[in-house]
Amino acid sequence: MQPAPQDFGRVLSSMCTEPHPDAREAAERFLADNPGDPTTYPAVADLEREAVELLGEITGLDDPRGYVASGGTEANLQAVRAARNLSDSPDPNVVAPESAHFSFQKAADVLDVELRLAPTDGDRRVDVAEVRRLADEDTAVVVGVAGTTEYGRVDPIPALGDVASDVDALLHVDAAWGGFVLPFTDHEWNFAHAPVDTLAIDPHKMGRAPIPAGGFLARDEAVLDALAVETPYLESASQPTLTGTRSGAGVAGARAAIDAQWPEAYRENYERGQANAEWVADALASRGYDVVEPVLPLVAADVPRGEIEALQSAGWRVSPTAAGELRVVCMPHVTREMLESLVADLDAL
Amino acid sequence: MQPAPQDFGRVLSSMCTEPHPDAREAAERFLADNPGDPTTYPAVADLEREAVELLGEITGLDDPRGYVASGGTEANLQAVRAARNLSDSPDPNVVAPESAHFSFQKAADVLDVELRLAPTDGDRRVDVAEVRRLADEDTAVVVGVAGTTEYGRVDPIPALGDVASDVDALLHVDAAWGGFVLPFTDHEWNFAHAPVDTLAIDPHKMGRAPIPAGGFLARDEAVLDALAVETPYLESASQPTLTGTRSGAGVAGARAAIDAQWPEAYRENYERGQANAEWVADALASRGYDVVEPVLPLVAADVPRGEIEALQSAGWRVSPTAAGELRVVCMPHVTREMLESLVADLDAL
Repeated sequence: MQPAPQDFGRVLSSMCTEPHPDAREAAERFLADNPGDPTTYPAVADLEREAVELLGEITGLDDPRGYVASGGTEANLQAVRAARNLSDSPDPNVVAPESAHFSFQKAADVLDVELRLAPTDGDRRVDVAEVRRLADEDTAVVVGVAGTTEYGRVDPIPALGDVASDVDALLHVDAAWGGFVLPFTDHEWNFAHAPVDTLAIDPHKMGRAPIPAGGFLARDEAVLDALAVETPYLESASQPTLTGTRSGAGVAGARAAIDAQWPEAYRENYERGQANAEWVADALASRGYDVVEPVLPLVAADVPRGEIEALQSAGWRVSPTAAGELRVVCMPHVTREMLESLVADLDAL
Repeated sequence: MQPAPQDFGRVLSSMCTEPHPDAREAAERFLADNPGDPTTYPAVADLEREAVELLGEITGLDDPRGYVASGGTEANLQAVRAARNLSDSPDPNVVAPESAHFSFQKAADVLDVELRLAPTDGDRRVDVAEVRRLADEDTAVVVGVAGTTEYGRVDPIPALGDVASDVDALLHVDAAWGGFVLPFTDHEWNFAHAPVDTLAIDPHKMGRAPIPAGGFLARDEAVLDALAVETPYLESASQPTLTGTRSGAGVAGARAAIDAQWPEAYRENYERGQANAEWVADALASRGYDVVEPVLPLVAADVPRGEIEALQSAGWRVSPTAAGELRVVCMPHVTREMLESLVADLDAL
């Protein structure tokens, strides 16, 4: 018997979701195309250019450089790699918030750079004074997160841009999760708001593309050049990506997802998710749990470990934050009914 | 109008191919599952364990460690990364054949290790004496290729194992393309033939899985440990992969492809591809072209650049080797009729 794919009816902590129907259809058609070899597979290469253009529109960048990556980890790693390669320092470092995704730990190991983590403030955004204290002439890139993985917080990106400029470092924004909801908020997070050099934005998270579809964007061609490796026996002369063969399904799915949803369906998606997050935050607070208020559609609450485990036993896919809180990510597949059912299960414990 | 995916009817130089129908079906079902988060998506995690077991069977390794990577580039990079991380040297190097895939150049840049390339001999296999000359106490890993990208050659893996042992380095085999045809030949290439530590084998090449499905295998758990990064807020404690979110389509597709074809359909695939390669080699040789004889189902011939460009204009997806030869990779989608049509087009020039 064939195993069944995951049903999303009880998935609450994942940042992946059910793909948009158009995106699924496009992905299925392009499962065998390799955008890593654009001369042999020109149709998917065209789709990738269109996807990157659309991602530029979403992130405030005319004439964007970049590509559809395997996900936020690759995009973050590539940002650090480009910054390291462009740095004059013999011993380059990266300054990032302690709230940054663990892919920066992975990037530091892979790329052999020092990672300096700056503490966050009372609202869980990075403390800019601490970033300034950690940044120095060897800093290759300053990282800000626009929608943190655990609490959905948006770091003060323009202020981080000032720090980066002062030490002559690049500025990278990790909007892997937040990028498809932030355009409908007042946050300053993108290329138009600050001197952002590179940015991660994942269509396969809030964008409702199928996996694997990340976005790696850069303002200047020099960043892509710093990543390029020569490619004999492929007609294209060089390759700036981390992987070689890449997913046509991800590229075609990303382009179809954005084409179908940007901007109106994404706006509705944000508004529904935010309303759901506020509803569940209130429901949990009214039951006496300490709740981290949702700035974006993501709630954390200090539900005891035993209760989280009871929810897991009941089939809920919930995983705690590093601090042990229950974490509910209001992705597009998460409905009010699911959240009501979650709260009812908590009440019944 | 939606663009069409690539038709494989004239694709001759790609190492990707049309997926097996069972693999396509499995991939479509698991497009939204993330094997990078095995607690939330346990079904696809089970499929990945099964895929890795099957890859171990194909490569002569009981109890294999590893995972389904995005492709050969990631698997090669991870092999070098593990070796670098396990090395005692402050300045580790990699010794690889000059015929190695360009992903080793990419790995060297990403991982900041020195890449030493050993020349090949008259039959385009690496010269073991040159490898021995280049390897030293700072060598972290010796690389052999089992099925080179340009000429389909198999390096003398056991002899490379001797060199690696003598300098206390790991031995990595890149069988990304060759791994699904070599089991039906007399070549010595896998974990059972030599003290191989790590191996790349891509289901999405000769294995007929959809993209992205590479295989990264290791004999010892220590290799995976050397790649592990801690993962807060995922239930699994650490992650040895290069990317974070990963393709459920690739994992489910790889497992279904191998389950459906290993070993008999893969044997037939090899025999048909090899016969096709020998047929086109003879056809080209009889027309006066210098032909690099196919050891595996891959032919190169010194067709002039102008004629290759004329074939490209006629819709053939052919790309030359670095030396400028026409390169025909006899993938499962390549039929005798396609090759007859190619030769007829050449004759008509």
